[in-house]
Amino acid sequence: MKPESIKQLFEQVRRGKLSPDEAVERLRHLPFEDLGFAKVDHHRVLRAGMPEVVLAEGKSAAQVAGIFARLARQGTNVLATRATEEQFRAVRRRVRRAEYRELARAIVLRQDRKRYGKGRIAVVSAGTGDIPVAEEAVVTAEAMGNEVEHFYDVGVAGIHRLLAHREALSGARVVIVCAGMEGALPSVVGGLVGVPVIAVPTSVGYGASFEGLAALLGMLNSCASNVSVVNIDNGFGAGYVASMINRL
Amino acid sequence: MKPESIKQLFEQVRRGKLSPDEAVERLRHLPFEDLGFAKVDHHRVLRAGMPEVVLAEGKSAAQVAGIFARLARQGTNVLATRATEEQFRAVRRRVRRAEYRELARAIVLRQDRKRYGKGRIAVVSAGTGDIPVAEEAVVTAEAMGNEVEHFYDVGVAGIHRLLAHREALSGARVVIVCAGMEGALPSVVGGLVGVPVIAVPTSVGYGASFEGLAALLGMLNSCASNVSVVNIDNGFGAGYVASMINRL
Amino acid sequence: MKPESIKQLFEQVRRGKLSPDEAVERLRHLPFEDLGFAKVDHHRVLRAGMPEVVLAEGKSAAQVAGIFARLARQGTNVLATRATEEQFRAVRRRVRRAEYRELARAIVLRQDRKRYGKGRIAVVSAGTGDIPVAEEAVVTAEAMGNEVEHFYDVGVAGIHRLLAHREALSGARVVIVCAGMEGALPSVVGGLVGVPVIAVPTSVGYGASFEGLAALLGMLNSCASNVSVVNIDNGFGAGYVASMINRL
Amino acid sequence: MKPESIKQLFEQVRRGKLSPDEAVERLRHLPFEDLGFAKVDHHRVLRAGMPEVVLAEGKSAAQVAGIFARLARQGTNVLATRATEEQFRAVRRRVRRAEYRELARAIVLRQDRKRYGKGRIAVVSAGTGDIPVAEEAVVTAEAMGNEVEHFYDVGVAGIHRLLAHREALSGARVVIVCAGMEGALPSVVGGLVGVPVIAVPTSVGYGASFEGLAALLGMLNSCASNVSVVNIDNGFGAGYVASMINRL
Amino acid sequence: MKPESIKQLFEQVRRGKLSPDEAVERLRHLPFEDLGFAKVDHHRVLRAGMPEVVLAEGKSAAQVAGIFARLARQGTNVLATRATEEQFRAVRRRVRRAEYRELARAIVLRQDRKRYGKGRIAVVSAGTGDIPVAEEAVVTAEAMGNEVEHFYDVGVAGIHRLLAHREALSGARVVIVCAGMEGALPSVVGGLVGVPVIAVPTSVGYGASFEGLAALLGMLNSCASNVSVVNIDNGFGAGYVASMINRL
Amino acid sequence: MKPESIKQLFEQVRRGKLSPDEAVERLRHLPFEDLGFAKVDHHRVLRAGMPEVVLAEGKSAAQVAGIFARLARQGTNVLATRATEEQFRAVRRRVRRAEYRELARAIVLRQDRKRYGKGRIAVVSAGTGDIPVAEEAVVTAEAMGNEVEHFYDVGVAGIHRLLAHREALSGARVVIVCAGMEGALPSVVGGLVGVPVIAVPTSVGYGASFEGLAALLGMLNSCASNVSVVNIDNGFGAGYVASMINRL
Amino acid sequence: MKPESIKQLFEQVRRGKLSPDEAVERLRHLPFEDLGFAKVDHHRVLRAGMPEVVLAEGKSAAQVAGIFARLARQGTNVLATRATEEQFRAVRRRVRRAEYRELARAIVLRQDRKRYGKGRIAVVSAGTGDIPVAEEAVVTAEAMGNEVEHFYDVGVAGIHRLLAHREALSGARVVIVCAGMEGALPSVVGGLVGVPVIAVPTSVGYGASFEGLAALLGMLNSCASNVSVVNIDNGFGAGYVASMINRL
Amino acid sequence: MKPESIKQLFEQVRRGKLSPDEAVERLRHLPFEDLGFAKVDHHRVLRAGMPEVVLAEGKSAAQVAGIFARLARQGTNVLATRATEEQFRAVRRRVRRAEYRELARAIVLRQDRKRYGKGRIAVVSAGTGDIPVAEEAVVTAEAMGNEVEHFYDVGVAGIHRLLAHREALSGARVVIVCAGMEGALPSVVGGLVGVPVIAVPTSVGYGASFEGLAALLGMLNSCASNVSVVNIDNGFGAGYVASMINRL
Repeated sequence: MKPESIKQLFEQVRRGKLSPDEAVERLRHLPFEDLGFAKVDHHRVLRAGMPEVVLAEGKSAAQVAGIFARLARQGTNVLATRATEEQFRAVRRRVRRAEYRELARAIVLRQDRKRYGKGRIAVVSAGTGDIPVAEEAVVTAEAMGNEVEHFYDVGVAGIHRLLAHREALSGARVVIVCAGMEGALPSVVGGLVGVPVIAVPTSVGYGASFEGLAALLGMLNSCASNVSVVNIDNGFGAGYVASMINRL
Repeated sequence: MKPESIKQLFEQVRRGKLSPDEAVERLRHLPFEDLGFAKVDHHRVLRAGMPEVVLAEGKSAAQVAGIFARLARQGTNVLATRATEEQFRAVRRRVRRAEYRELARAIVLRQDRKRYGKGRIAVVSAGTGDIPVAEEAVVTAEAMGNEVEHFYDVGVAGIHRLLAHREALSGARVVIVCAGMEGALPSVVGGLVGVPVIAVPTSVGYGASFEGLAALLGMLNSCASNVSVVNIDNGFGAGYVASMINRL
Repeated sequence: MKPESIKQLFEQVRRGKLSPDEAVERLRHLPFEDLGFAKVDHHRVLRAGMPEVVLAEGKSAAQVAGIFARLARQGTNVLATRATEEQFRAVRRRVRRAEYRELARAIVLRQDRKRYGKGRIAVVSAGTGDIPVAEEAVVTAEAMGNEVEHFYDVGVAGIHRLLAHREALSGARVVIVCAGMEGALPSVVGGLVGVPVIAVPTSVGYGASFEGLAALLGMLNSCASNVSVVNIDNGFGAGYVASMINRL
Repeated sequence: MKPESIKQLFEQVRRGKLSPDEAVERLRHLPFEDLGFAKVDHHRVLRAGMPEVVLAEGKSAAQVAGIFARLARQGTNVLATRATEEQFRAVRRRVRRAEYRELARAIVLRQDRKRYGKGRIAVVSAGTGDIPVAEEAVVTAEAMGNEVEHFYDVGVAGIHRLLAHREALSGARVVIVCAGMEGALPSVVGGLVGVPVIAVPTSVGYGASFEGLAALLGMLNSCASNVSVVNIDNGFGAGYVASMINRL
Repeated sequence: MKPESIKQLFEQVRRGKLSPDEAVERLRHLPFEDLGFAKVDHHRVLRAGMPEVVLAEGKSAAQVAGIFARLARQGTNVLATRATEEQFRAVRRRVRRAEYRELARAIVLRQDRKRYGKGRIAVVSAGTGDIPVAEEAVVTAEAMGNEVEHFYDVGVAGIHRLLAHREALSGARVVIVCAGMEGALPSVVGGLVGVPVIAVPTSVGYGASFEGLAALLGMLNSCASNVSVVNIDNGFGAGYVASMINRL
Repeated sequence: MKPESIKQLFEQVRRGKLSPDEAVERLRHLPFEDLGFAKVDHHRVLRAGMPEVVLAEGKSAAQVAGIFARLARQGTNVLATRATEEQFRAVRRRVRRAEYRELARAIVLRQDRKRYGKGRIAVVSAGTGDIPVAEEAVVTAEAMGNEVEHFYDVGVAGIHRLLAHREALSGARVVIVCAGMEGALPSVVGGLVGVPVIAVPTSVGYGASFEGLAALLGMLNSCASNVSVVNIDNGFGAGYVASMINRL
Repeated sequence: MKPESIKQLFEQVRRGKLSPDEAVERLRHLPFEDLGFAKVDHHRVLRAGMPEVVLAEGKSAAQVAGIFARLARQGTNVLATRATEEQFRAVRRRVRRAEYRELARAIVLRQDRKRYGKGRIAVVSAGTGDIPVAEEAVVTAEAMGNEVEHFYDVGVAGIHRLLAHREALSGARVVIVCAGMEGALPSVVGGLVGVPVIAVPTSVGYGASFEGLAALLGMLNSCASNVSVVNIDNGFGAGYVASMINRL
Repeated sequence: MKPESIKQLFEQVRRGKLSPDEAVERLRHLPFEDLGFAKVDHHRVLRAGMPEVVLAEGKSAAQVAGIFARLARQGTNVLATRATEEQFRAVRRRVRRAEYRELARAIVLRQDRKRYGKGRIAVVSAGTGDIPVAEEAVVTAEAMGNEVEHFYDVGVAGIHRLLAHREALSGARVVIVCAGMEGALPSVVGGLVGVPVIAVPTSVGYGASFEGLAALLGMLNSCASNVSVVNIDNGFGAGYVASMINRL
């Protein structure tokens, strides 16, 4: 249910086709259509102008397919994150045009191909291990109607590789930086660009990386002031925040 | 030294008044004018179009005054954060027009009153203890040329107080939310608005708040996808990131 | 062995059918009937007026069935938590009327259907991932003779969904709130109701949720004063505490 | 402002003395009477039937006195926790009948001496160092209209001292247990009584007590199922939760 | 190689059968007989009068069997801890008289049945989940020549069960107490007996038990002064320390 | 009150001077003689045959003096740990023969000079910073009737200094080892002696020592099996445990 | 691509065979030859004079083989760490002369057998469980052209075994020390030698070793001043740092 | 006492002026000359060829002066770290030529001005707050006979400032890098140079820097393989390790 439909609801009230009480009742029930295992909130679309998202992890293939199919009927883009191939196969049986983005472990349905973002979003990652998280950010930002460019394998220990992309980076309106281990990349990138940087710590590393804690702490303490941080491995969140900024 | 001065440098090269080598030399030396205890980086202005900032904490009053006076000569706004009254008195002896913002513990010099932000920044805080951090964000955003509105003492245990401001919050282009203890406020605010939310955990609390760790973890795990996070008590960082977003 | 049986023991003493010494001896031996792998404590029933409970996790199917069957002979309700279907099958072979509550991963035997709770217990949960913990609380409270109502998928990022249930929540005598990730829900619910709130952090989340630590810390630091907390994923404990309060 | 006053507001509407709009307006403004540094929420009284509470820690003596005096005008009991003697002196200059409870570090004003609690609340503490926290719970519960009995210095290493009070403990309707160091006391007490136990970890201890963390973890992992936990040193919260239970 | 053999070495020197240089050389080489993957230290027997011990965990069945067989030739008792049944089968093929203690997950070879301990060692455990650790302590103490008595399933939430064994406990010369979850049992036991208590935290529990951390911290902060602590799940260490004390 | 007095109580019962009921009453009241701020437990002497101990830290000089004087009347040795000179002066005004052991920060009253320990206790420490903790152990063990020998400044980075004392160490019946920083000393000492080693981590160090946590973890993971551990800086506990062992 | 090739590039410029622009272009493109999943950085060889290294963990066998084969063409030594046998088989199908070092879990290709290190590197380890990490250090140092000698199973609880090697250790130019559990070995070795010691904490241990954290903290707090530390289980890093030192 | 003196000792033995027994006795007593509060170990000089060092923190001015004066008599350089001005004044009264290095908080006595290091040591630091730690490293390395060059205020958020020094850095034989906050600098520097990098995390920062923990974890997880790490704020250790490397 997109804003247009709600506007029509009010229009019907204005024209006397619905009493205000009836309208309130209809609006009230809309977000609570019960799927049996989860209440899908149509209002979220209204509020944020964003596509619907399912966290596939921890759900059965049948559950993911059920929720996905339901959401697909709203006409928006639909995204299932942390999805397995098995979950994808279950989804595709019900939603033919759904695609699987393997690197990002995401199921995507593009029904709305409008460009919402005003500029370009750059996604930078430090090592090959960070690519799944970076790809989740890419897929999310694309599903939200943004042009996205990525720069992978440009870690800080080979600073010349990053600097070679400096000009390209400067052209972005928002930059997402994914890094595990010491998580130093956002600080360096933050110093190179004059736009907001969304830092994503990844759980790449071992020993004293403590599943991404080292990278997370590093990013929170960044000496670059234009850096803000999302949860460990939260590529989706970074893509979402960046998309919201890019629409402003 | 603002972008204008650098443009003139290139102009002089174009007109043959300076050889490229001389220009490079001059540019090269500019950022390293040595103050004895810290190298002031003029390039940062060039890159970010932002005012100069001094972290006053841990520096002597004389050091703060020395750096502040030097920066003031660039013509930009100057901000000293986590400053004591004693440091302020030292600054004022050298920079007459500097002001002390007591709640924010900040020294501010406004030399550039241009409005750089395109919309309004809202600053929300949960309890009275969070106000110093919130005020640091306010002062920072103002010094960076933004219109700022604040909503204090609207914690989640009295949700009606927050909801009473819902409409006003919706009018902001970026929202900063400061909260200590359980740090739940950004999630609720994130659900109410359709713009980026910068969450600032504060060290307000005791016992299992572990100096802001509880709030920090809460914010990183926010179920609202439009939330990104800065360091504990980092009102300055939140104001800086929000300003950068508001310029886009 | 329920209080009634103990009362009869004293009655027999009063009537001279047993000497006090014999009675003491009989009482003394009752709680130590040895099952080989665990001493079942009948006194717990006497003391608390509560059913018997087995933590199935980490025990073999045969062990669970053995303990369960033994407890079933006391005539009370019996509950096995964190039980697998395999454990259930072993139990059912010995106790025909035992049921498996799949969502709650619990085996229940209802032999005593008396209503012990004076009012209603509400169980609220934030996301679909929190449902197993919430259901464990529901099953526990029901097995302890309470009327239970649940409100699922009402997380704080969509505050209107929670507020839609405000009136229903206000009718409860005790409220259990289960939430993972940032664990903010108990604070909001605590502000909406004037009764005790038992908060249960769940291990739902990833990255900086640190297996439920973020939610736990958030709840311990709740700004709502009517909130107390049990262990991560401890739906049973929450149901038990709530039942005890509801009997007062 | 107590419930009675709100009832009168509706009565005036019923009698036509106020239009609904006027009434809504009046109600809407009530909770936001601005004190300059904090919004006092009269609604909280309405909702919970509880006295007003000020956390004095971190506020100036003048601020505490200002808030306290304002709250005193509502006619309810008023409690300032973690208050210094200096803060008390400032309060007494404005509120003559305020008292200082030194052990509890609390300022109390009793204006409403009605007994709200149906039974007795027992407060148990392990060592002499835990007494300030225990006393804060006592003062809170008393200010909320409860009969309170305390049992101090009954740590688990001298179990006979605790057992000597077993009968007295059994007579309580709710038990609060405060303990630092290993925090074992709530488990033992929980096993002795058949009513809810509110456990309060204290920061008493050194070394590996990590400012109360050891006691907190111990209590969260209690093998007694009737135990729920509040924040470290949160005597107020324990008194508040216990009072709410005792009113049911 | 037991002390007797070394004594003979010196005897040979005294009688002139060996020059001191030859004796030193012989002694020097003894402890370094190389097994290919680990140097077996015969001196340890000499020094401590204790049996040889192999940590089986993380070694292949063949490795365990190889080391075990080698050690068996010294004539002492041999103990392999954290051993699987598969490792045991490999051992038994080479050392016929080795036995497997399933609950303790230990392989034992008793070649020396002398009683070294002067009194009795009591092993107490809180829950059924703690039994494997307790049994490892029992097996260790027995292999070191002690009389051992165990008291299982006597957790603090049912304090009467522990008190029923008070007299028996008082007869022990050293007490080992194993407990997971809140780890409160050693404090209570410590208060009941006048002998050293060795506390063993176990990893039994979930959520905020953090794999035994809660129990460990609880025991380190014990208010009973006769308690010292070994590593989480270290039943072997507790049995070893207790044996050493019991020989004094 | 020492065992002798209790024996007389029973004697009076035997002789008919007291009825059993009167004796029970008298015994019951003995341990609860109330000092106003703390219940002194005379039974502890009876149970453990140990002197009375006061933790002076966090108590006023008057409180310490009050408790100390009261305990002094029992005729046993009395020890106040973590005591300041000011507290000592208050004690000496009431108990003339009390002494202050400055290095150990302890107040000692020796009234019972009997030797209870069968052998010698050795106290070893790594650096000069560890001496206060080591001295607390020395004072405690002496007050409990033991012969004590100390070996200070024998850290592992200068292993020859420790080895020079090897023979002397071997003569001890129990060894206490105090070390901060990496806490490696107990492992080395444990390997050198064939008797129980009580390890005391100290908070000496900085940075990643985390107030003694590094040393604590090191000691808990000691590869020497005869090591058990007490709390950080708990010299008293180590002295107490060692004394108890030395009496066996 | 080794330094020689780059020198030739500059030679061609000197001789006029290449314009500086062409040379810059060629150099610029060299490091970015794209393998599809990772950019191989030839410059690293140039800069460090070191072989190429692949972290095999988390990569598919095909990926490892692809990268390994590509790197092999540079003519340098190639090392794949944390490699499985399956990955090795895939590599050997493409690079015949690659060898698998099972203990070290490493695939090695020696194409350059020049001795770069000036002296000998000693690798010391505490227990048998530490050998894989120690072997990774050995393999790394050998692949980098060093003479390596190892001393295994010389833990601190049997200090005489370590001391027996003292002279041999003193002959090394750098010492690598691998230890898990309490991580005490580097401090003792550091005190025995007058050369740099690289400490490698290993995740060997259980319970309070917290996956190597205890050893890591121990080593960071070493009282031997010649010790520096690398990440937990980072045998490769230790071998690399030691090699770099040994070339000086 | 320097190696020369020991050589003379052996010379006297060779010439028959001393019997071996007398020489052993003399050598044996040398390191244990007791200063009353600490044993000064002359052997350390012999072993490492390094100056004597006193950790002044936590010692009285008189103690520092006593130890310093004693050490000064050996003829080596003497260094007191973490020293206050008051301690310095006490030292200077006894050792006229001692100097105070204020920024480094160090007292230095240069008696031996020989250059022991073969190359130059570079000390790099990120922010002005890191300078005290960096200066401690400088002073230490100088006292150990090295040429030292420092590069301050070259944090990663202004990468051009660091790159401007690239050539100078490349000339060093060892590089020490001090950084607080996110601790990213060693990774970037490590990628720029082909020599060993000693990383020193500093406690500069606030909030989630957790007193240097964030920087420490970042450095341990460095993606640059030539980095090893010392304790937080351990400038002395870094200078010591670097000096030892530079002598090779």
